[in-house]
Amino acid sequence: MNSNRLEAFSDGVLAIIITIMVLELKVPHGTDIEALAPLLPVFLSYVLSFIYIGIYWNNHHHMLHTVQKVSGGILWANLHLLFWLSLIPFVTGWLGENHFAELPMAMYGGVLLMAAIAYFILQNRILSVQGKDSLLANALGKDIKGKASPIIYGIAIISSFYNPWVAGALYILVALMWLIPDKRIEIILKKKE
Amino acid sequence: MNSNRLEAFSDGVLAIIITIMVLELKVPHGTDIEALAPLLPVFLSYVLSFIYIGIYWNNHHHMLHTVQKVSGGILWANLHLLFWLSLIPFVTGWLGENHFAELPMAMYGGVLLMAAIAYFILQNRILSVQGKDSLLANALGKDIKGKASPIIYGIAIISSFYNPWVAGALYILVALMWLIPDKRIEIILKKKE
Amino acid sequence: MNSNRLEAFSDGVLAIIITIMVLELKVPHGTDIEALAPLLPVFLSYVLSFIYIGIYWNNHHHMLHTVQKVSGGILWANLHLLFWLSLIPFVTGWLGENHFAELPMAMYGGVLLMAAIAYFILQNRILSVQGKDSLLANALGKDIKGKASPIIYGIAIISSFYNPWVAGALYILVALMWLIPDKRIEIILKKKE
Amino acid sequence: MNSNRLEAFSDGVLAIIITIMVLELKVPHGTDIEALAPLLPVFLSYVLSFIYIGIYWNNHHHMLHTVQKVSGGILWANLHLLFWLSLIPFVTGWLGENHFAELPMAMYGGVLLMAAIAYFILQNRILSVQGKDSLLANALGKDIKGKASPIIYGIAIISSFYNPWVAGALYILVALMWLIPDKRIEIILKKKE
Repeated sequence: MNSNRLEAFSDGVLAIIITIMVLELKVPHGTDIEALAPLLPVFLSYVLSFIYIGIYWNNHHHMLHTVQKVSGGILWANLHLLFWLSLIPFVTGWLGENHFAELPMAMYGGVLLMAAIAYFILQNRILSVQGKDSLLANALGKDIKGKASPIIYGIAIISSFYNPWVAGALYILVALMWLIPDKRIEIILKKKE
Repeated sequence: MNSNRLEAFSDGVLAIIITIMVLELKVPHGTDIEALAPLLPVFLSYVLSFIYIGIYWNNHHHMLHTVQKVSGGILWANLHLLFWLSLIPFVTGWLGENHFAELPMAMYGGVLLMAAIAYFILQNRILSVQGKDSLLANALGKDIKGKASPIIYGIAIISSFYNPWVAGALYILVALMWLIPDKRIEIILKKKE
Repeated sequence: MNSNRLEAFSDGVLAIIITIMVLELKVPHGTDIEALAPLLPVFLSYVLSFIYIGIYWNNHHHMLHTVQKVSGGILWANLHLLFWLSLIPFVTGWLGENHFAELPMAMYGGVLLMAAIAYFILQNRILSVQGKDSLLANALGKDIKGKASPIIYGIAIISSFYNPWVAGALYILVALMWLIPDKRIEIILKKKE
Repeated sequence: MNSNRLEAFSDGVLAIIITIMVLELKVPHGTDIEALAPLLPVFLSYVLSFIYIGIYWNNHHHMLHTVQKVSGGILWANLHLLFWLSLIPFVTGWLGENHFAELPMAMYGGVLLMAAIAYFILQNRILSVQGKDSLLANALGKDIKGKASPIIYGIAIISSFYNPWVAGALYILVALMWLIPDKRIEIILKKKE
């Protein structure tokens, strides 16, 4: 089994996740600017989650590009990742509708943390098939971003209960950290060609 | 007609089914842990159904991999399977919102039973085209799991009315039975290469 | 431009249409058989529409298989078809929730009629590119089903206002007429190989 | 990385956007023509947005057809475009439910304007990789439509507050302008073959 259908299915799930989040932006009844105001936090949390799903899609895309054969283990590790990502619309809606309250803020981080762990497991599954000198292993190097993210999520979850804004800032920080283009795999792939 | 577009369409439907189930996790109004508590059964039934759709996707993927030409019969047998799977979000939501009550528990098993029968019909359609010595026929062997599942579903449906927890345990049992990687087709495909 | 991306996009839209219809099956609050009873007409209309979308997907699939190049005209004729099909979940929900009342019954036929006309336009666009001796032209022959369907829909729409059950029977008749495998294109394609 | 998976993901998102808009057409409770009347503006705004998404899909399709390699910049410019397009169901629903009131009308134009700018950025990203003598650069020429659209959106947004019908007419005008088949890239591609 090659990775094409796995990519196609993951693309489908990610495309649906990124799009159904917008359904939380409920059409307001009024037509003035006051009617829109309560939607602002929902909108902001939508933007953040859109970027996160975009980052996951991007990295997932690059990582699966290095996979030749899909084992049962990779397949279930991938579904495990999709499971946690599928909860992002729920925590995004909860976060936005409650104006970034403590528990929703912590839960948002909790889902991000579980997704990061699931991504890490998937990555290890792929590496264990490919070996330590593989394309992906070289591209990841010390994988500082991959290791820093769960730690920052953990700090953000704890700080949610003291100051939700600190947690929010940390979630934005991680997103920005990944938005800076991750050229590692791209560079290695280019060398290979 | 080759199997590519059939796979792509099935992937699309399965990706949507697996993702819209999360819409049953309605965003709660409160922000404390009590607000989340009523969602726990919904969440648990979501996890179980996510695993079931994952199993179907996985097995469907392997089975269609052996198909060269798609006849009209295979196409409609496939749509019949997708029909029953499309009802899983409904029974999952009903099950979760009613804390695993008798009738929803039985209905959940009923849909799983119909999906298993539909899968069986699709499998037979494919086998009847390929012959008894085909790749798929060898891979399936006696197909013990495929035959045991509908029987266990049947027992679970009956036991739903006496003790829903027994039914729940049986649904988890079948899921675990299939989660143990089904290497049959994978092994045969590897031999062929 | 080849037909691959057109097929992929159409598959995506059809997969979503066929799946979001199930969202009309709203999870009932009760847990006894009486709670399910009001869902029966919704379920029945879902079954019928599922079969119709399945038929369209099937025929669409075969027809596009004969297309080599996609012109702008074909592309927009295809979007026009998808537009009318996208209204099927709406009329299905309206039909089911109102126990097959007159106007919803007529509207259901109206959308089917417009979809049939849109399919006819798309077919003609493809034929005008391919010529009268093309694969598709031969496969269609006199296209009796294609011409009979809109006429039956028209009769059904009118009869909706007198006896909705007659209209319902006619919609089922057309579905059955198409369910009988349409081997025309399949046969011609086989000859070609 | 080639453009296949980018196209597949974009197709998925666009297919979902174009289809979930229909969910704003809420099934009415009554069964007479009066029950349908309030849905007319929702339906009309759905038609307009359906055409807009169709135009974007069409142009996006042609443009990506000229792309050989997808850089990180192109990928994020594409996600940026999809973000603004994902808001179209929201503004469409708001517009339709409020009978084309001032602010919803302006917001609709605002989202269209942002999408046009995002498309422009994506186009420039692709052009900057391909160079001034590339296929796409020739095909676009002076790109009069691409430059006129944001200006017309701007005028429409302002006129929304004075006369929403003028704004509506301008949105229809831009849609018609693009509906007239954009043969530029098609022609150049044909020459190339």
